[in-house]
This record gives sequence, C-alpha cells and structure tokens, in this order.
Amino acid sequence: MIAQSLIADPLPSWNDGQPKQTIIQFVHDVTDPDSQNYLPHGDRLAVFDNDGTLWQEKPLYVQLVFVLDQLKTLAPQHPEWQTEEPFKIFLTDPNPDLKTLGTVENLLTLALATHTGMTQTEFDVQVQKFLTQAKHPRFQKPYTELIYQPMVELVNYLKLNDFQVYICSGGGVDFIRAFSEEAYGIPPENVIGTAVEKTFQVSSQGISLMREPKLVKPINDKAGKPVNIDRYIGKIPAIAVGNSDGDIEMLQYAASSSQANLELLLHHDDAEREFDYDHGTEKALTLANENDWIVISLKKDFKRVFPNS
Amino acid sequence: MIAQSLIADPLPSWNDGQPKQTIIQFVHDVTDPDSQNYLPHGDRLAVFDNDGTLWQEKPLYVQLVFVLDQLKTLAPQHPEWQTEEPFKIFLTDPNPDLKTLGTVENLLTLALATHTGMTQTEFDVQVQKFLTQAKHPRFQKPYTELIYQPMVELVNYLKLNDFQVYICSGGGVDFIRAFSEEAYGIPPENVIGTAVEKTFQVSSQGISLMREPKLVKPINDKAGKPVNIDRYIGKIPAIAVGNSDGDIEMLQYAASSSQANLELLLHHDDAEREFDYDHGTEKALTLANENDWIVISLKKDFKRVFPNS
Repeated sequence: MIAQSLIADPLPSWNDGQPKQTIIQFVHDVTDPDSQNYLPHGDRLAVFDNDGTLWQEKPLYVQLVFVLDQLKTLAPQHPEWQTEEPFKIFLTDPNPDLKTLGTVENLLTLALATHTGMTQTEFDVQVQKFLTQAKHPRFQKPYTELIYQPMVELVNYLKLNDFQVYICSGGGVDFIRAFSEEAYGIPPENVIGTAVEKTFQVSSQGISLMREPKLVKPINDKAGKPVNIDRYIGKIPAIAVGNSDGDIEMLQYAASSSQANLELLLHHDDAEREFDYDHGTEKALTLANENDWIVISLKKDFKRVFPNS
Repeated sequence: MIAQSLIADPLPSWNDGQPKQTIIQFVHDVTDPDSQNYLPHGDRLAVFDNDGTLWQEKPLYVQLVFVLDQLKTLAPQHPEWQTEEPFKIFLTDPNPDLKTLGTVENLLTLALATHTGMTQTEFDVQVQKFLTQAKHPRFQKPYTELIYQPMVELVNYLKLNDFQVYICSGGGVDFIRAFSEEAYGIPPENVIGTAVEKTFQVSSQGISLMREPKLVKPINDKAGKPVNIDRYIGKIPAIAVGNSDGDIEMLQYAASSSQANLELLLHHDDAEREFDYDHGTEKALTLANENDWIVISLKKDFKRVFPNS
C-alpha cells in the first residue's frame, strides 16, 4: 500500500508548496525502516481537530446550528421553554444576536437541554435527520459536503501508511461519530470529543444508555485535548493537525514526543472560496512561527477546498 | 488470514467442547459474507475483562499487590504514612488482614496515594519495575506469565478474523496499558479501565501529564463498563468475555445488540491448576444459565492454563 501511495500524487487537492512537501517527506521518513526517524506501526498516530480543520466552522459551529435547530424541534415537548431564558429569546427571536446572547453559559444550557434527556439511540436519529436536511446558509449544501477535500486526502494518505487517525474535537463526541466514518473515513472508535455522562438503564423495553445533562470533564478543548488523548489512547501522537488556539496544547503535546513528530495548523485566509479569519487563532499562529509548526494557507495550499467544488 | 485460521486449530489450548465449538462456529458465521449473521469489519468488536478473564486474580488482584508494594517503595517520601491510617497498619503489619482492612474506602485511599502525585512517565517506570520483579506467591512466576493461554489464543483468533479486541477492566487503565500489548497483543489504545484525572503541565522540564488523586467517573466496573465502552468506542460489542458479577452489565450490553453476539463467562473451577471460586460470580453464573451466555469451565475447557505450563 505504501507503493501505491508513491506512484500517484497522494495529495492531489494540495498545491505544491512547503506544507505538502513537508508532509510527504515526513511520511516517507517515518515509514522508512532505514531512517533514524522510523516509527513502528503502533506509534503512527495522528490526531485531527474537527471544526475548522476537517470541516468548515463559519458563521457558526455546525453543532451550534444543530442546537438551535433542536431547540425548535424539541420545543413542543418543553412548554417551560416559552417563558424560561435563555430558551425564550432563542425561540422567539428569528435571528438571535449571538454576540450578546451566545455566552458560554447560555450555549452550554442550550446544548445540554437539546443533547440530553434522551437515549443514545434517540439522539443518533436526531443528528442523522439534521445532517440530512440542514444546509449551509452561504454554500447551500449539506454540512457533510463542506469538508476539506485536502484534509480527507491527508487522512487517507496517513491511513495508507498505517497511521491510526483520530479526531480530537471540542465538539460533542456523539455528534461527530454520527458522520465521521462516512465523511472522513474515521470510525466512531477513533473519535475523541466532549462527552456527556450516560447511565446504563434496564427496562421492559430493553437496555439503553440515557444521556444525562452533565459534561464529562475535561471538556475536550485546550489542555483537555492532551488529557483526553492520553485517557483514550495512552500514547503521544506523532502528527497533530489543528486550526485554532483551542488546539495549542494538542500541538504542544505532539511536539513533546521524543520521536519524530509533525504539527500542522490550518490558516483560514480565503474569503473567496471559504472564510478569512484570525480571531481565536492569533496565539496559535504566533506559536507556529516560534516553533516548527507548519502553517497551511487555505488560499495558497488548498488547490480545492470542498469535494466536488 | 481467515484461510490461515481455518487450516490449523485456531484454539489449540482449548479442549473440544461446547465453548470451543460455539466460538469457532460464531466466528465462521459472522465472517461469512453469505450468512445472515455477517458482521462488517467495523462491527467486529470484542471486549474482554482483565482480572480473572485474561490473567489470574488470586489470592489478590495483581494491581492490589502493586499498591501494597508501592506503599513500601514510596514510604520514605511520605513520613506522614507512619502515623496516618490506613497507611500505618499496612506498613507495619507484615501480613495485613485484608478481610477486615481491605474495605473499599481503605483500598481506594491506598490506591490513589500510590498511583497519583507523579507524572504519567514516572508512574509507567514504577509499573514496569513491579511487573519485572514481582512474583506470584504460589506459582513463583512474574504475573505477566500468569495469563490464560487459551484466552490469548482467542484474542489472536479474533484479531485474525478482523475483530478489534479491547480490554474493559475495573483495574487501572494505565496499569494494564503497561503490559497489555506484550502480554496479550492488545495495544494501549484498546484498553478501557478505571482512570485517574490528569492535568497537562508545562514547566521548564517540558510537558507532562500529572496524575491527580481523583477517579474519573464512572469507575469501570458493573454498569460503568457499558457506559465506558460507549464513551471510548461508541459501538455495542459483538463479543463480551468476563468472569464475575462485575461483568454482568457488559455481557448484557453485548447481548442487547441487534446483530449477532456472543457472551462468554469464565468459571474458575480448577483448584489444582489454578483456583476454584464462585464468590463474586454467583449472580453472573445464574444469569448465564438464564440467558444464552456460554460458561467456560477452566477445568474442562482449558487444555493448558498458562503459557509454558
């Protein structure tokens, strides 16, 4: 399979440039048994952030769109939301101002209210329904088509070279597991994300896992990412790919490996084909320059952005 | 690779009998594309308990031996233990009576005191040292040689048939990860166990994960097992293998699958070659008989117990 990846260009949606060259050189190096940087199969581990790294995240995180959508879907079962904040304002205002209303506390309240109190099976049905029906306001496509084709190629290229590829996202683990295999070829067991507590229930209807309104700590963002990588995998990744300040500790963790390692940071600088923003990624960009992290310019390095685009 | 498993006996350390036949028949069935019970590769998931299922657990859980050993090793750094209970009694009594002193509260106190307050790297060194030096009081062998050869063969047989094999143990995840790959061929990322919280620390010495004296909930026992299988894997296993009442919910969870599934319970009934005990496994044995769970008799079904025995 390595031979196959050498014949054709393994990353056809990438423009030639330093990031593409560095990635291919790194993979050749760590898979070459004669290299001093050779990594045994068990140490070939790559972690990818999701929002803004594997798929687009603007103007809202996709999962936040789902939360707002679910709020309307579930409202008939929750008459108390008509008078209780922050539910009331989000249900009545057709265009809620997220700059003032989108506080961490409000969003967490809405997320827990719409993501818990049902069984895991029921939740899965709701996510699938949303992913099938919802469309991005600008691109007018289902969100699962707004994934970065170059990143999907990178995932495949790494898998062909016997890397285990994981997602490590601040988003909800069960939300991502609902589409990660079909969209990226990353199976549910390779998804690390923010989780809610669940309880095992035996009833006359059989066995189920009930989603409880409490987050498992740590939230899988910032310093929570390396903590959960250790908790779920127990190894330091050789490759970490992120796009924001929330990925800094994950990139630092990969960089702390005593073996060969590669850190990649996707920079959104293409207003025409996607979005152009530095907000929330300033510190990561500074650290990338101070360290050996590779900054991927969406504008320069992505030949194509989305599949079929 | 399937062909290979068909040519030779894939389970040479098992005596012919219902468990061996059922296992082989199940694997043939779910890997046969023409069978209605066929499982796609992604659904071939097996979970094994560890203590008493993959290795012996008497007279003490191996990790408890490690705790008592570490208590002595770490005592010089903890002068307060000389006067503080339960440390004092365990340090001064050469043969502490675990029937009265081994309460859950005491053991948890000792386990947290000996398992936390150090970095993950430091902890790994201590576990490796213990596993290299300690010997079982009766068998006079390192504990990693007191694994069940028939179960190791079952793990290999399942892996050859494209199953992902996980450990799901009440024991400490980091303790098991220290030896699971070498002993069983199960890599660290496929180990689910009880975990302690960790914090990501950046210091002049670099980056480390500090082990904190607090357990991640749920403890990976009883109803915590299916909850953590869902949290780590996100799928219902097709095969669950256990030996005690702590495995009941994990077996029930596998049995709740809408696809083909197999539940196995190892019964320790061989005082001569290993141990003979029902304590702590009574309810599981009853449920096995009431359901379609296969009870494996160590005495009748294991041709060999340990490797090289």
